[in-house]
Amino acid sequence: MKERFVIIGGDAAGMSAASKARRENPDLQIIVLEKGAWSSYGACGLPYYIKGDIKNIEDLVAITPEKFREERNIDLRLHHEVMKINPDNKSVIAKTNYGEIEITYDKLLISTGARALKPNIEGIDLDGVFTLRDMGSGQRIKEYLEKNSPESALIVGGGYIGMEMAEAFHAYGINSHIVELFPHVLNSFGPEIAEVVENHIQDYTILHLGKYVNTIRKRSHGKLSVQLKDKKVDDYEEYPLTDMVLVAAGIAPEVSLAREAGIKLGQTGAIATDEYGQTSIADIYAAGDCAEVKHTVTGKPSYIPLALTANRNGRAIGSTIGGKITKLASITGTAIVKVFQLEVATTGIVDTEIAGKNGFSPIKITIDSHSRAGYCPRSKPIKISLVADRESKQLLGASMVGEEGVVKRIDIIATALSGKFTVEQLEKLDLAYAPPFSPVWDPVLTAARVLNSKLD
Amino acid sequence: MKERFVIIGGDAAGMSAASKARRENPDLQIIVLEKGAWSSYGACGLPYYIKGDIKNIEDLVAITPEKFREERNIDLRLHHEVMKINPDNKSVIAKTNYGEIEITYDKLLISTGARALKPNIEGIDLDGVFTLRDMGSGQRIKEYLEKNSPESALIVGGGYIGMEMAEAFHAYGINSHIVELFPHVLNSFGPEIAEVVENHIQDYTILHLGKYVNTIRKRSHGKLSVQLKDKKVDDYEEYPLTDMVLVAAGIAPEVSLAREAGIKLGQTGAIATDEYGQTSIADIYAAGDCAEVKHTVTGKPSYIPLALTANRNGRAIGSTIGGKITKLASITGTAIVKVFQLEVATTGIVDTEIAGKNGFSPIKITIDSHSRAGYCPRSKPIKISLVADRESKQLLGASMVGEEGVVKRIDIIATALSGKFTVEQLEKLDLAYAPPFSPVWDPVLTAARVLNSKLD
Repeated sequence: MKERFVIIGGDAAGMSAASKARRENPDLQIIVLEKGAWSSYGACGLPYYIKGDIKNIEDLVAITPEKFREERNIDLRLHHEVMKINPDNKSVIAKTNYGEIEITYDKLLISTGARALKPNIEGIDLDGVFTLRDMGSGQRIKEYLEKNSPESALIVGGGYIGMEMAEAFHAYGINSHIVELFPHVLNSFGPEIAEVVENHIQDYTILHLGKYVNTIRKRSHGKLSVQLKDKKVDDYEEYPLTDMVLVAAGIAPEVSLAREAGIKLGQTGAIATDEYGQTSIADIYAAGDCAEVKHTVTGKPSYIPLALTANRNGRAIGSTIGGKITKLASITGTAIVKVFQLEVATTGIVDTEIAGKNGFSPIKITIDSHSRAGYCPRSKPIKISLVADRESKQLLGASMVGEEGVVKRIDIIATALSGKFTVEQLEKLDLAYAPPFSPVWDPVLTAARVLNSKLD
Repeated sequence: MKERFVIIGGDAAGMSAASKARRENPDLQIIVLEKGAWSSYGACGLPYYIKGDIKNIEDLVAITPEKFREERNIDLRLHHEVMKINPDNKSVIAKTNYGEIEITYDKLLISTGARALKPNIEGIDLDGVFTLRDMGSGQRIKEYLEKNSPESALIVGGGYIGMEMAEAFHAYGINSHIVELFPHVLNSFGPEIAEVVENHIQDYTILHLGKYVNTIRKRSHGKLSVQLKDKKVDDYEEYPLTDMVLVAAGIAPEVSLAREAGIKLGQTGAIATDEYGQTSIADIYAAGDCAEVKHTVTGKPSYIPLALTANRNGRAIGSTIGGKITKLASITGTAIVKVFQLEVATTGIVDTEIAGKNGFSPIKITIDSHSRAGYCPRSKPIKISLVADRESKQLLGASMVGEEGVVKRIDIIATALSGKFTVEQLEKLDLAYAPPFSPVWDPVLTAARVLNSKLD
């Protein structure tokens, strides 16, 4: 009998695993159970679909189900929701449109992804309150916008999705509020970088920093009344009125199936795995937004759910199960986000408190530079925060913001982190220079030089 | 008596050395002898000054002579041309407007730069034939363009300057020819990348590849008649007519002073130094476009004269002479150039023949990818060539071309080369992704994956 590889969840990690396992082993039986109607799609594109940059939601689909089935011989089953994993029988129970079925596996991959966090807000289930996580929720928001032509929207959460959706709402001419519990938006990027973002978005949205939403109520005139409270000031209350609310307060790993099967979760709450992606139960693997991944800088398991990690580690597990043993890659947590005209990026550990908790003695500097030679027209400011460890002089992380030249510049730091560079090694890099593209001393080199001078 | 540091040449390397030496040692006497009228200027900006992007040539001056003199206490002397170095007396002889003078030194830095190569062409000294190297030559070209409104120009050499000047001429509505001896423009970038550039510039200029200029003659109607010959075809001749010729056939290190003083030159023809920039004669240092620098990939002395190296190694020598011993940085030869709408970049060793001569067993792949997620509008093609060594699986170099996203992407490779990464390490990098800025699998990762699959 052929070996059977069963995959729970048909998005980035799951379909990467399926495709790679097939390439490595043409004889493997591969079954993917996806609870929803879509597979293999770029969820990161949803804000741009809603905004209107991407015309058809189908364009977000990387590879169609037909192609998986016909060209790759992968038994992809949509509308198959796995209810239970039975490690003793090596089987899973799935709910389908035609009743429950049990499917046995030789190898199992849990790639159940993450769900949008729903904070404890009274009224969070009212009509007009949305989250954005998958294709369905993206379609619902887009339909609402087109049907109801709202004038105002309130976004709960100043993270990536909050920033991107503020831009999407602005494209509809919608006045928006952003409510962020932390003192700054994009909290993990550090206050110096966040403040540039906050100044920039004030032209487009109303920011409520250090505030949270306590209740949402429907008023007789049809608007939603949102009660804002201040994290620190007891008697603070404000009641912005809005046509709709988007809750973008972060995501949590979808681990209920794993937990109920007795699979060990890590300290982060996501599924713990070994360096090959195998969970605490033999022959069961986990990858993608439901799983922990080793952090390059700390060497510890971390939960930073991003698309590349899901694709890459799904692929590594597929390779292993297909017969070519492959280790997972560790991550540096590199992220970029477009915020109206700004490019904002981070990698590694920028928060000195977190660095301290991980045993480092962090030192952080922030510098201002430019995207082009000083004499070039259209040169734009770039701000960089750079963090290192005082003892080892090793680089720990960086954040950047600017109107141009930030995007791939962060990858210099990501590469340096991967190579365990000291600040001095960073300072000595031979980086590209031409007047329309960079100052002679690239902003990264300037940051490294300033930080290095404090380490002497 | 105060220690005296004398510097020959007041541009990038020289003034960086002077400034850094001053910061490290307030008591040092620092004298800079510059033969021309300008110091501390961004020669790389000259094509953009000629084009008109930069309005005043003074804008290219990073720091004025007054500032060097008054704020940094550096005795900068313009119009002082050093004629001779006398290592036995530890002195130099300079020609000045008021006669010859002899100046003794305790430490000497030779930062004489490079000169434009003048190929053996009959008629190369005719009116209307130019080179571009320093501020004076930039001014002469600009004045000629404004005064004579030429309709046509012929560029000898398809390197950086040739490409940038074709763009500058185009801005004046001038029809241009580019004559390149090699089979491709931007020869060191590799043919796959060069061909994209050649296709692109055909909309703006007429390319003559594998050709050279034999003679330039002035015709009675005032035009220059340029005799082109083919490198391989004996009886090939072509005679384009042009109003002006720009010879941009490369540069050569300015080493005559050093050679005459008995200082050892390296195999490249540039001045050889130790890891602190000291030449074969004690207390005489060399940096900038006249000196060799160790190559990160080969570990051997190389001659790749670029602005960052001059600035950085000038600074390192200034630091050492100021009292803080500092090693030079090695280089990976990272370069970028804007060619009309294209960004073209290279780093490390891309030429497999050169890699072979340096003891490597090179393998090269070229891939096509995109600057943004596939479903994003305005995504542009990116082409990457990646080279590695079969034995060690170590990365050797890369070239890239595209309309966006190339510039700082090359620095990922430069950083990886500096860290002696294998292709597998490159493939496992956690690079930044967001739909408007990159595919999930960054083009660099795709290239690494394809190359790695050939190394298995």
